[in-house]
Amino acid sequence: MNNNIKFSYPDSEKVYMNGKIFPELKVAMRKINLTPTIEIVDGKRSETPNYPVYVYDTSGPYSDPNVKIDLKKGLPKLREQWIEKRKESVPTQMYYAKHGIITPEMEYVAIRENMNCEELGIETHITPQFVRDEIAEGRAVIPANINHPESEPMIIGRNFLVKINTNIGNSATYSGIHEEVEKAVWSCKWGGDTLMDLSTGENIHETREWILRNCPVPVGTVPMYQAFEKVDGKAENLTWDIFRDTLIEQCKQGVDYFTIHCGIRLKNIHLAESRLTGMVSRGGSIISKWCITHNKESFLYSHFDDICDICAKYDVAISLGDGLRPGCTFDANDKAQFAELDTMGELIERAWNKNVQAFIEGPGHVPMNKIKENMDRQIEKCHNAPFYTLGPLVTDIAPGYDHITSAIGAAQIGWLGTAMLCYVTPKEHLALPNKDDVRVGVVTYKIAAHAADLAKGHPGAAIRDNALSKARYEFRWKDQFNLSLDPEKALEYYKTSNNVGGKYCTMCGPNFCAMHISHTLNEQDCLTK
Amino acid sequence: MNNNIKFSYPDSEKVYMNGKIFPELKVAMRKINLTPTIEIVDGKRSETPNYPVYVYDTSGPYSDPNVKIDLKKGLPKLREQWIEKRKESVPTQMYYAKHGIITPEMEYVAIRENMNCEELGIETHITPQFVRDEIAEGRAVIPANINHPESEPMIIGRNFLVKINTNIGNSATYSGIHEEVEKAVWSCKWGGDTLMDLSTGENIHETREWILRNCPVPVGTVPMYQAFEKVDGKAENLTWDIFRDTLIEQCKQGVDYFTIHCGIRLKNIHLAESRLTGMVSRGGSIISKWCITHNKESFLYSHFDDICDICAKYDVAISLGDGLRPGCTFDANDKAQFAELDTMGELIERAWNKNVQAFIEGPGHVPMNKIKENMDRQIEKCHNAPFYTLGPLVTDIAPGYDHITSAIGAAQIGWLGTAMLCYVTPKEHLALPNKDDVRVGVVTYKIAAHAADLAKGHPGAAIRDNALSKARYEFRWKDQFNLSLDPEKALEYYKTSNNVGGKYCTMCGPNFCAMHISHTLNEQDCLTK
Repeated sequence: MNNNIKFSYPDSEKVYMNGKIFPELKVAMRKINLTPTIEIVDGKRSETPNYPVYVYDTSGPYSDPNVKIDLKKGLPKLREQWIEKRKESVPTQMYYAKHGIITPEMEYVAIRENMNCEELGIETHITPQFVRDEIAEGRAVIPANINHPESEPMIIGRNFLVKINTNIGNSATYSGIHEEVEKAVWSCKWGGDTLMDLSTGENIHETREWILRNCPVPVGTVPMYQAFEKVDGKAENLTWDIFRDTLIEQCKQGVDYFTIHCGIRLKNIHLAESRLTGMVSRGGSIISKWCITHNKESFLYSHFDDICDICAKYDVAISLGDGLRPGCTFDANDKAQFAELDTMGELIERAWNKNVQAFIEGPGHVPMNKIKENMDRQIEKCHNAPFYTLGPLVTDIAPGYDHITSAIGAAQIGWLGTAMLCYVTPKEHLALPNKDDVRVGVVTYKIAAHAADLAKGHPGAAIRDNALSKARYEFRWKDQFNLSLDPEKALEYYKTSNNVGGKYCTMCGPNFCAMHISHTLNEQDCLTK
Repeated sequence: MNNNIKFSYPDSEKVYMNGKIFPELKVAMRKINLTPTIEIVDGKRSETPNYPVYVYDTSGPYSDPNVKIDLKKGLPKLREQWIEKRKESVPTQMYYAKHGIITPEMEYVAIRENMNCEELGIETHITPQFVRDEIAEGRAVIPANINHPESEPMIIGRNFLVKINTNIGNSATYSGIHEEVEKAVWSCKWGGDTLMDLSTGENIHETREWILRNCPVPVGTVPMYQAFEKVDGKAENLTWDIFRDTLIEQCKQGVDYFTIHCGIRLKNIHLAESRLTGMVSRGGSIISKWCITHNKESFLYSHFDDICDICAKYDVAISLGDGLRPGCTFDANDKAQFAELDTMGELIERAWNKNVQAFIEGPGHVPMNKIKENMDRQIEKCHNAPFYTLGPLVTDIAPGYDHITSAIGAAQIGWLGTAMLCYVTPKEHLALPNKDDVRVGVVTYKIAAHAADLAKGHPGAAIRDNALSKARYEFRWKDQFNLSLDPEKALEYYKTSNNVGGKYCTMCGPNFCAMHISHTLNEQDCLTK
């Protein structure tokens, strides 16, 4: 296992902000330092400093030069003492929120969401009290298993920054533990807010252990995958006991949220019959097969209260999986999908009654004109619970580019209110992603999420855009790259031209640079009269 | 010059459809042949054929095995006889349309837009009469210079398929003629509907000649670039005479549409003063500099009627360039931008009065929540003239990925009514695109345009999606790839897995394939009761 896994961002500092309610909090952020603006007026050179820009930082201790990483030992246990201090029998964030209590996790995320607001005096609605109230109402979730103290608190809800999830994990055919841990850290480097370990092959437990102990963001799983391995891939042999034991095993290990396809009802399975692509959810198809074979209601549905009792003990959030999500644009918004959504609306209230944090998974493949109906209906039927969608892909004709087809849908549904977007890589539908695919997928989804934040008017979201645009106009190339989502890629492309550092790039050449000409207008003092 | 420039698409035929009004028309299409669906029921193997899918084909004679390509001679002159037959002094499509005449070009595009409709009995509103009426009203444009008979007619208007434009062209620092011709053909291969040659370096005339004679799609230019070269990059030395001569030179050569920044008024230039990134249009900044230096109204504005008279003689369409488009999200929808739009609304009516086809260019950089205002305002102020936008990019923080930031905006504005989307490559803001960047840019924009067609409900647009989804569900991998926008890329990614041709891919492995499990449900006859 390679311990040489640390990294840094160019001209950036790892900084920590303290709490006010909990002064011991150290909320990690990345501070990008900028060069000054240099002007020459009447032959005199003047320098005007540019404020540093703080950006949301998901990279954990990997980007802190003062922390030594030992993958065998795992990351420092940031939340250990907060958790130890709490003595309630139900340790969920929702329980505390409903009792009016602000936890360190709640203040942590409030500070984290606001980034540049305090420095720049930007008004923000996000206070620790607001966070608490959103969680109490079920409108937001902090996935925070008491057995995953390594993870830095983050919040999923439509009144906060739009988050993205990264899927990694091996399948029976490919990829080892080492590579999965590398992908996990890689995902955090580029901005993944949560990480789902979807491993289905051998060594599921061990792979997950390595990931959990070394992952600074919440980790989700689909426990059915492991249960399915326990019955050698024979759906009909699944039992509630096997599933329950798997849940408990993963709760103890520290998984922060479970995708469980409890929304599939026996009576609704036939609705997928008229579809073009049937069921495309692995968990959904497995439990459906069980239901059909035994002609019985799914044990995920009939034991839902038991599932909640287990999750409540560890503060594991439930992600209500959409087993009947459409697998192509033709199947979007059909009866099967919406019947499941109705069931989810029923279940989310049962989870809340047991103080279990929960959210709702959504599609999938949806043409643009049908996206809004998904969001509106989810808000209505699921009582404002956070929505967590996979894309959606807005067309089916571009395998090899489905990070793009899905980012188009993701940006829109994020703007409309989806709280977290599950990324899609260029290899979707074709093969397992490698490290580079993870990078492209994460950056693409950071774009979609940030575009949604801008459109929603999240406090301070535009600071980074404006700083980058100013750097661009002033030909501060290095600042432009450093402020971008992928500084390495931007620099790499820029270097393909032959004039690094000049007041133009090869797109237009020296004489045709509009920005340069625009500047000369200013210098002529022609624009200021 | 490499004559070995031809290509083919896998399992596809180049087919031609004849006209009804003009039986001699041969409208090129690509027919993708599919394999049958194979089912084994009760041990018996059955085959059900799948209909071939016709797709819009921009590749011209390069994909026709029966045409010999000689780049020195140029492409066959498809429209030569149609043009020769017409004896009117004003040869524009708009002139004919206003006089109730249907031209071969009009029937050509009507057939082309409908693809699978006749075969599959899909109702369509697009008839030659409809095309004529849309052109007569100014709602659509067929860019078709009488001196570019090599180009295959296509239509730009919001009641038709959304089109995409590709920018190529060298700058003073890089790229030769050979490479630009290769990029032009490459763009047509991947689906570019029109091509702008934005060369600014040496050999502008010669580069354009090679491109025009070998380009099966309409070619646009920004004539100011060549005029600017003629005055050695000194904006103040530009004159109407130099510009006029440049226009005539390019009209004679066969350019199909001109981007001209006539919308910039002396009184409005100061509006860009408060911007974060000033002016980012090359043409716009050049003419602004001229205006400011001479303190005079732009000759592009004051000679607009003369420009129209020239264009009317050759049926060159005018693309009213947006010199004041926003160069960052901060500057979006500002006074400068909208003042120019008002001027464009005045000019488009003057163009129509002279039977000149015209359309309106739009931004640029616009956050999602401000996109709709752009479209609504353009329709209102510019009297339903087609809109042609560059993206827009919905955030500024992702240089290196701006094909994606802009495709998110492009898909939305296309859905709202934009008729043509100007592509953006991954190198935008950083360097000139190479061949691979052109491919990625074109495919990305085909995605945005097609997503918009689906959302708008263009007749038959979903046929390709549904055929691909069906192939995916039936594990007809080859059909899936062949139906995709980039079959080569999809196959390449698929091959990174180790199980080519199986009933699963490495994403899920054999046991976890949801589609496979979903099939077994069907086979159990469980879904059909």
